Amino acid sequence: MNELKRIGKQTVLFPSAPKMIATSSVVGPKEGEGPLGKFFHRVLKDDMLSKDTFEHAERAMLRYVMEDAILKQEGGFEGVDLLLGGDLLNQITSSSFVARELSLPFLGLYSACSTMSESLVVGAALIDGGFARRAVCGTVSHFASAERQYRFPLEQGTQRPPISQWTVTGAGACVLARDGVGPKIVRATVGKVVDFDVHDTNNMGAAMAPAAMDSILTHFLDTGTSAEDYDLILTGDLGILGSKLLCGLMEDRGFPIDGKHADCGAMIYEQEPEIDQGGSGAGCSASVLNSYIYGKLMRGELHRVLFVATGALLSSTSTQQGDSIPGIAHLVVIER
Amino acid sequence: MNELKRIGKQTVLFPSAPKMIATSSVVGPKEGEGPLGKFFHRVLKDDMLSKDTFEHAERAMLRYVMEDAILKQEGGFEGVDLLLGGDLLNQITSSSFVARELSLPFLGLYSACSTMSESLVVGAALIDGGFARRAVCGTVSHFASAERQYRFPLEQGTQRPPISQWTVTGAGACVLARDGVGPKIVRATVGKVVDFDVHDTNNMGAAMAPAAMDSILTHFLDTGTSAEDYDLILTGDLGILGSKLLCGLMEDRGFPIDGKHADCGAMIYEQEPEIDQGGSGAGCSASVLNSYIYGKLMRGELHRVLFVATGALLSSTSTQQGDSIPGIAHLVVIER
Repeated sequence: MNELKRIGKQTVLFPSAPKMIATSSVVGPKEGEGPLGKFFHRVLKDDMLSKDTFEHAERAMLRYVMEDAILKQEGGFEGVDLLLGGDLLNQITSSSFVARELSLPFLGLYSACSTMSESLVVGAALIDGGFARRAVCGTVSHFASAERQYRFPLEQGTQRPPISQWTVTGAGACVLARDGVGPKIVRATVGKVVDFDVHDTNNMGAAMAPAAMDSILTHFLDTGTSAEDYDLILTGDLGILGSKLLCGLMEDRGFPIDGKHADCGAMIYEQEPEIDQGGSGAGCSASVLNSYIYGKLMRGELHRVLFVATGALLSSTSTQQGDSIPGIAHLVVIER
Repeated sequence: MNELKRIGKQTVLFPSAPKMIATSSVVGPKEGEGPLGKFFHRVLKDDMLSKDTFEHAERAMLRYVMEDAILKQEGGFEGVDLLLGGDLLNQITSSSFVARELSLPFLGLYSACSTMSESLVVGAALIDGGFARRAVCGTVSHFASAERQYRFPLEQGTQRPPISQWTVTGAGACVLARDGVGPKIVRATVGKVVDFDVHDTNNMGAAMAPAAMDSILTHFLDTGTSAEDYDLILTGDLGILGSKLLCGLMEDRGFPIDGKHADCGAMIYEQEPEIDQGGSGAGCSASVLNSYIYGKLMRGELHRVLFVATGALLSSTSTQQGDSIPGIAHLVVIER
């Protein structure tokens, strides 16, 4: 019988510690002007990448990071057994079409803006289980394609409420490997769907914060750790308001994270009125993790990061039909 | 170092052979009147299940089969560590909301009508790798929600071309387990995205047949097997025309499957003009595999089944923007 690699209620262990051996990131011009601009591998001058539609531009960004990450590591496509990814577009077409172009076996995933961590959870498990030598994991979002799919046509010029976030135009990818050098994925907690009955589709931070709380708290209890044991607890795209809510929820439960917490959405843009609560979108945490944070891990400025990307599992149909917005947060622990 | 459980180019092995210890299926009235009607666990009299929308009815069907499969096996929810699933609705809301209601850790998947086999691939890998004791895998589709999302409002009464298929109102789920009694998942081939430049969104069979060919052929070559080694090669929802295309493609490549091949979409309905080429939809293969085929495996009428559900990875946006329809087919080998 195979050994059970589980601890506590919901946490899994990766004894062979799959390595993040190469990463890539790309962002749009607005993200490039933000405080993390110099850390991204590529900043676009034209967020259309000369394509005819927003969706085709989004696809080109995902292709770029996946190919770039694969080609950065020794062997290139040789030994890359799987492509793991998803995106926000209906039927995850960005990912499916990139998988077609790269001609790699493909497992399509969907957990909205939690897809970067979902792909790392599944990738690390498949590598630790012996089912792949290397897997490329990643996701993407594009401001313009997300706005028109989830909210309003951009041409309409709809006024944004102050609790809203700005969907990041960005993508990130990472090659996970059995062998090689890089930060290691040592544990993960697969998230549950958590719903605190938020109905406001502009308030994504409030919809996702309870899911982040649930996964972080479960991970602490399963592993007997607390915020002190990590250099950084990095959420995906709760934004400024959502981050405050998460810190409050954790405080209430006796596991404060204030000094250790940062949020990719809260850090990616300069503060300006248009941006409101910060960034969101699957590409937000994907681009920040695979550039700025990866660099800090490689240089030894961070040793142990709890990465917990957060997703809001709504669709425009579920909203129209009166459903609340469920959230999910998949969590991985990355060690230098 | 962990053992590598791969063979050939693209095939993975599950030495511990995760077992399908319990299954459930539900279908609508039309499917209940078909030749497989008496094998489904539940046939609905009302395909709305007294819900207010098609989408809420679809969700209720998925919840029913997942809960039913879980409760059929000893221990019930205890020891079920994961819910793996997806569906055709934008942002896989049927699955996400069911995961919320059942409160299980959830990995959202998307590979259109190949989701049943994708969930079995990922589930078997996670169980064989030691990351879960039991996992519930499943998917759903509903004629009315799929038609209005992918094609036209039903109220419009659009005439259907003779190459079209009828989206199955149905769901299927299965509990995979480390321990227990039931048919075993012994191998899998993760599909590549294959595109033969089909643009006709009514001709799903033609769009998906090349992907089925690619996965079956790869599996044969990776494992040194051919159609003779299986009692049944069961595709998901190619329909009658798509099945003919698949058999022709396999014949051309020197690996004929004619005598061994069956297709869930081609067998689920009585032949009548309205049905055209047969059934389609993620729920088609999910409901047939987890009822009729599962029964045959349990009774020893089948010993080794190659199950290859097929998915068309289009969205209404990709179609509107002129993209062709890529297909994917994930494959598992199930042994008694």
